[in-house]
Amino acid sequence: MGKLAVDISMSLDGFVAGPNPTLERPLGDGGDGLHEWAFALASWREPHGLPGGDVNASTNVVQETLEATGAVVMGRRMFSGGEGPWEDDPNANGWWGDEPPFHVPVFVLTSHARETLTMQGGTTFTFVTEGIGAALEEARAAAEDKDVFVGGGASVVQQYLEAGLLDELQINVAPVLLGGGTRLFDAPGGPQPALEIIRVVEAPAVTHLKYRVMK
Amino acid sequence: MGKLAVDISMSLDGFVAGPNPTLERPLGDGGDGLHEWAFALASWREPHGLPGGDVNASTNVVQETLEATGAVVMGRRMFSGGEGPWEDDPNANGWWGDEPPFHVPVFVLTSHARETLTMQGGTTFTFVTEGIGAALEEARAAAEDKDVFVGGGASVVQQYLEAGLLDELQINVAPVLLGGGTRLFDAPGGPQPALEIIRVVEAPAVTHLKYRVMK
Repeated sequence: MGKLAVDISMSLDGFVAGPNPTLERPLGDGGDGLHEWAFALASWREPHGLPGGDVNASTNVVQETLEATGAVVMGRRMFSGGEGPWEDDPNANGWWGDEPPFHVPVFVLTSHARETLTMQGGTTFTFVTEGIGAALEEARAAAEDKDVFVGGGASVVQQYLEAGLLDELQINVAPVLLGGGTRLFDAPGGPQPALEIIRVVEAPAVTHLKYRVMK
Repeated sequence: MGKLAVDISMSLDGFVAGPNPTLERPLGDGGDGLHEWAFALASWREPHGLPGGDVNASTNVVQETLEATGAVVMGRRMFSGGEGPWEDDPNANGWWGDEPPFHVPVFVLTSHARETLTMQGGTTFTFVTEGIGAALEEARAAAEDKDVFVGGGASVVQQYLEAGLLDELQINVAPVLLGGGTRLFDAPGGPQPALEIIRVVEAPAVTHLKYRVMK
């Protein structure tokens, strides 16, 4: 069985999205700055159908994650930005157009049941209404021996962390301060798991920190 | 003129002290974990009068900071843990005994005026009642060409950052989650300064991230 891992970009002040997010700008004020390191990268641009880009220390990190990923779990908000019944969601097929960049089965946590969406390029979106445990079980079955990644948002990462289910955390620290927004770690209180550094990669406009979550 | 810099240890979830701090345990629950990397270090133990310790990738980082430091500014809370008139403060000479580990002039922000304290080993504590600008001016004069370090706590760092006075941020990210406590960056809102990575050092139980604050 593969690991359950997180790979997420965070500002130095702890945010995964800036203040005032909208459907048009889901990352909020300044939030694009979290991902500039990725936008510049050939290995990010290629699966998003964009030409060109840089090859640098982040390239191997991104490649490593791509190769390890057998399935993804994400929250409804990360999938479409919406909430409530799907027929009222203007973005009900997700942010990514006909060929999303995942190329693996994706499990979307929602309280609104729906048929699986099959997209181009190997991405499927399956909608799970029975909570994080059920989504993980389905994702593990789909991933076979590969890892399952929690794609976000922050509240989904927090739920898996608090349930003691996460094995690894990769935090891509962007050199920006957002001053507000959505925190990755939102002071849940109570005992926290111990961490162990696996590795650090210094790259242009980002520092990749990878931790093992001790059980 | 030297730089105005911060050198502070922070948990991965953004705290510089854990929840429930007391006079006996000023770092709160789990807060010692922020500094375990330093406690283990010969170059930290020596100025604190302790024998032994490790030499590793953090050694140069600590040494660099020690050599660069011409003066320190800190808050009253960091100095003694107390507040209010000094005669009611059981810790009125600070945490560090007769020979504090600074060995340079230290300027303590307080609203309660008091004579300068001269300690052994070159540390003086001067009490500044006219705010962060006045403290910085006095510290710069004392530091001559060397740097002034903001020692903490978090609110003092925030004040200097918001005033646009900080030149460099060194954040020592400890591989711990505290789940609550005092945040280094407390979501002040509004425009934030841009940052630029200066360098990253991977060391046992800590990652040293150094940023330039752009003006």
